[in-house]
Amino acid sequence: MFEQIFDRVRQKSPLVHNITNYVTVNDCANMLLACGGSPIMADEVEDAVEITEICSSLVINIGTLNRQTIPAMFAAGKRANELGHPVVLDPVGAGASRLRTDTARKLLDEVRFAVIRGNVSEIKTLALGSGTTKGVDADAADRVAEENLDEAVLSAKEFAGRTGAVIVMTGAVDIVADRERAFRIRNGCSMMSSITGTGCQLSALVAAFAAASPEHPLEAAAAAVCAMGLCGEIAYRRLSALDGNSSYRNYIIDAMYHLTPEELEKGADYEVR
Amino acid sequence: MFEQIFDRVRQKSPLVHNITNYVTVNDCANMLLACGGSPIMADEVEDAVEITEICSSLVINIGTLNRQTIPAMFAAGKRANELGHPVVLDPVGAGASRLRTDTARKLLDEVRFAVIRGNVSEIKTLALGSGTTKGVDADAADRVAEENLDEAVLSAKEFAGRTGAVIVMTGAVDIVADRERAFRIRNGCSMMSSITGTGCQLSALVAAFAAASPEHPLEAAAAAVCAMGLCGEIAYRRLSALDGNSSYRNYIIDAMYHLTPEELEKGADYEVR
Amino acid sequence: MFEQIFDRVRQKSPLVHNITNYVTVNDCANMLLACGGSPIMADEVEDAVEITEICSSLVINIGTLNRQTIPAMFAAGKRANELGHPVVLDPVGAGASRLRTDTARKLLDEVRFAVIRGNVSEIKTLALGSGTTKGVDADAADRVAEENLDEAVLSAKEFAGRTGAVIVMTGAVDIVADRERAFRIRNGCSMMSSITGTGCQLSALVAAFAAASPEHPLEAAAAAVCAMGLCGEIAYRRLSALDGNSSYRNYIIDAMYHLTPEELEKGADYEVR
Repeated sequence: MFEQIFDRVRQKSPLVHNITNYVTVNDCANMLLACGGSPIMADEVEDAVEITEICSSLVINIGTLNRQTIPAMFAAGKRANELGHPVVLDPVGAGASRLRTDTARKLLDEVRFAVIRGNVSEIKTLALGSGTTKGVDADAADRVAEENLDEAVLSAKEFAGRTGAVIVMTGAVDIVADRERAFRIRNGCSMMSSITGTGCQLSALVAAFAAASPEHPLEAAAAAVCAMGLCGEIAYRRLSALDGNSSYRNYIIDAMYHLTPEELEKGADYEVR
Repeated sequence: MFEQIFDRVRQKSPLVHNITNYVTVNDCANMLLACGGSPIMADEVEDAVEITEICSSLVINIGTLNRQTIPAMFAAGKRANELGHPVVLDPVGAGASRLRTDTARKLLDEVRFAVIRGNVSEIKTLALGSGTTKGVDADAADRVAEENLDEAVLSAKEFAGRTGAVIVMTGAVDIVADRERAFRIRNGCSMMSSITGTGCQLSALVAAFAAASPEHPLEAAAAAVCAMGLCGEIAYRRLSALDGNSSYRNYIIDAMYHLTPEELEKGADYEVR
Repeated sequence: MFEQIFDRVRQKSPLVHNITNYVTVNDCANMLLACGGSPIMADEVEDAVEITEICSSLVINIGTLNRQTIPAMFAAGKRANELGHPVVLDPVGAGASRLRTDTARKLLDEVRFAVIRGNVSEIKTLALGSGTTKGVDADAADRVAEENLDEAVLSAKEFAGRTGAVIVMTGAVDIVADRERAFRIRNGCSMMSSITGTGCQLSALVAAFAAASPEHPLEAAAAAVCAMGLCGEIAYRRLSALDGNSSYRNYIIDAMYHLTPEELEKGADYEVR
C-alpha cells in the first residue's frame, strides 16, 4: 500500500505551500524536492491565499510565529479548506508560550486539518490542555515508550475523533491515528533529534503525501512517517566516524532522493491496531 | 573573456547586498563567498538604503515577498541606481500571484535593472503579460528547447531592448541577451532543478560578476551563468551512489569555491548570436 | 578548566533562545544541537518574552535587523536580566549602518550583557564610536595582528570594564576579556571566514556555554571560542581536494558534535594575560 502512495507522490509531483518558520525552511524545501514534490513559500496574507490556490496542499508551521504571518495562516487555511486541499498543522512549541498555544487552538477552531503532526508534548497540549513542552522538543515526562503506548494511542484516536484530523505524534515510537485505527511506527533513529527541523521536514512530507492521496490521509501520513524514519536509518548507516549531525541532515535528504516506493514498502516497520 | 571577468570578481571581492527570500538566503550567502564575493542582507527600509551605499551591487529577489520588505526593495533599488551600482531582479514566482507579478512590474517601472534573471515562465510573465508560472518553477508549457530556441532568443532581445536590462532566462538552455546579442548557454545539469535555490544563487552570482565588471553587464551575466552551470557539472561528476540533492547542493558551492578563471574560460559552453 | 565547562554544557543541555537573523539561523540551531544544547527561536515580542522564561540564556543577533523584531530584543533582553540569564549580543554590522549601530548602542544602554561578541570593526564601533565596518566582515584596517595585539587587549578590557560584559573580539587572534584578564586564543583557520555565519554560530555557542556556567562568563566564553576554533581546525584537516566552503560548514558542525571535553582541554590554544 505504501508503495502505491509513494509512487503517486513521484508521479503527481504535488506543489506544496508552506507557511513555515525561517529556521528550517530550506531543509523543508529540499526534502519536498527529494520526495518528488515541489515547494513554495508565501506568508503575506493576499499572496498566501493565491499561492494556496495553485498548490495541492498546505502546511501551517508555527515555529517562528509572528503577528504578520498569523493572518496568512488563517486565510490560506480557509481557502485550502474551500478547495478541498489537505492542510497539515505543525504546532511547533505549542505549550511553550501562550501565543503559540492560543494560535494553534484558534487554528484548530477555524481551519479543518487533514493532519496534525507534533511531538508528544505539543499534541498533549492541544488534546488535553496540558503537556509540558520544553521549548520545541518534547519533555522527557511526555515520552511515549512501550509502557504507555496503549494509552498514547487511545488519546491520539480520541483527539482524531474530535478534530477529524489524522494525528501524527512523533517520538521514540511514532503514532499515526484516525478515530478508528492507529499505526505504531518504529522506523527512525534517535540521532534524528540532534538535527534541527526533522519534525518540520516530516510535516512537509506528510503534506506532499496527503496531496497525492487525498482520499487516504491516514495511510498517506503513515507512509510519510515511515519514509522519513527509513531515510533516517539509511542515512545513519552511511555515517562515517567523522560525520555528525550536519552531514546526517544532508544524508537523510539524500536518502529520500533515492528512496524507491518498493524500498519504502519493504522497509516500513509498523503495526496497525 | 570570461577568464578576465571571473578574475576581477576574485580580485575585487565585491560586497553584494541581497534583499531576498528566507528560503534560500543561506545558500546565496555561501555561494557569494565561494565565488570570491561577500554577502550582506538588509531588508528594513532605512537599513537597506544605507547598506546599499557600502555595497557594489544589489539583488532584489521576491521569493517570499511581504509588505514590510517591499518598500526596502524600491528604496534600495533607487539608491543603487543613483550610485550607478548594478541591480539584479529575480522575479521569483512572477505570474503565480498578483502580489508577485504586480511588484515585479512596478519594480521594472521604478528601478533600472542591469540584469533580470528568471525562468522562462517568470520572464514571459513580465515580457508578454502571459506565461503559466507553476509556483516557483517554470511550467512545462514554457520550456525552452531546441525547437523554440530562436523564438525565445528574439523575445529576450526584445524585452532587453524595452527594459535596458540584460535578460537571463534559465532553463534546459540558458539565454543571456541584451538588445543586440544573445548567449545560448548549455552548461548545467537537469539535476540542479532538484535543489531549492539554484536560481536564487545564480542571481546572487550575477550580481557579484556585474559588480566586478559594471561596464560589461552582458558578458558578466553570461560568465556567471556559465560558472554556475559548470559547477553543476563538476558537482554532478562528484556524486556518489548515495549522494542526492542535499549533497549536490553542497558540492555545487564547493565547486565554485575551487573554480579557477581558466577553468571557467575552458569549460564555458555557449554560442553568441 | 575548559573540560569541566564543556562537560557542563553536555550535561545540562541548556535551552538557548536566539533572536537572530534569517541568513544563518539554521546553522546556529544545528551548532547548538552539536555542542549539546538545544535551540529555540522566537521574535514576536510577547512570544519572545515567554520563550526567554523557559530558556537558560539568550542571544541577540542584529544580522537582519527589522523594526518588527527590535522590540522583542529589548523585551526579551530585559526579562532575561530579571531572571539572571546570561545574554549575549552579536552586533552584526554595527558601524555599517545607523540602524544597526544605534540599536546595538541602545541595547547596551538598556540590557545587561554577559558577553558581547563581534569582529574587531564591530567592537571598535561600539567601544570607541569609530571602526570601519565593511559590511558584516571586519575591515582590513581593523585587523588584529601580533603588532597591535596588546593595544587591542587593552581596549577590550577597558570596554569590558565599562559594560560589565565579557568582550569577545574575533579575528586572526581572538581576544576574550573581562576588565582584568584576557585570553588570547589562536585556535581556528582563516578558511572559516569563507563560510557565512561562523561568527553567529560562535555567539550561539557562547550563550550555551555561559548558560551552563553562569558564574564563570569569562572562562565559558573563552572555552566556546576555543571549541569553535578547534572544530574549524579539525574540519579543515578533514577537507578533501574537492571540498569547499559548503562542505567545510558541515564538517565544522560535525566536529562539534564529536568534540569531547578532554579534546577541548588538550586542543585549546590560548594564553591569559
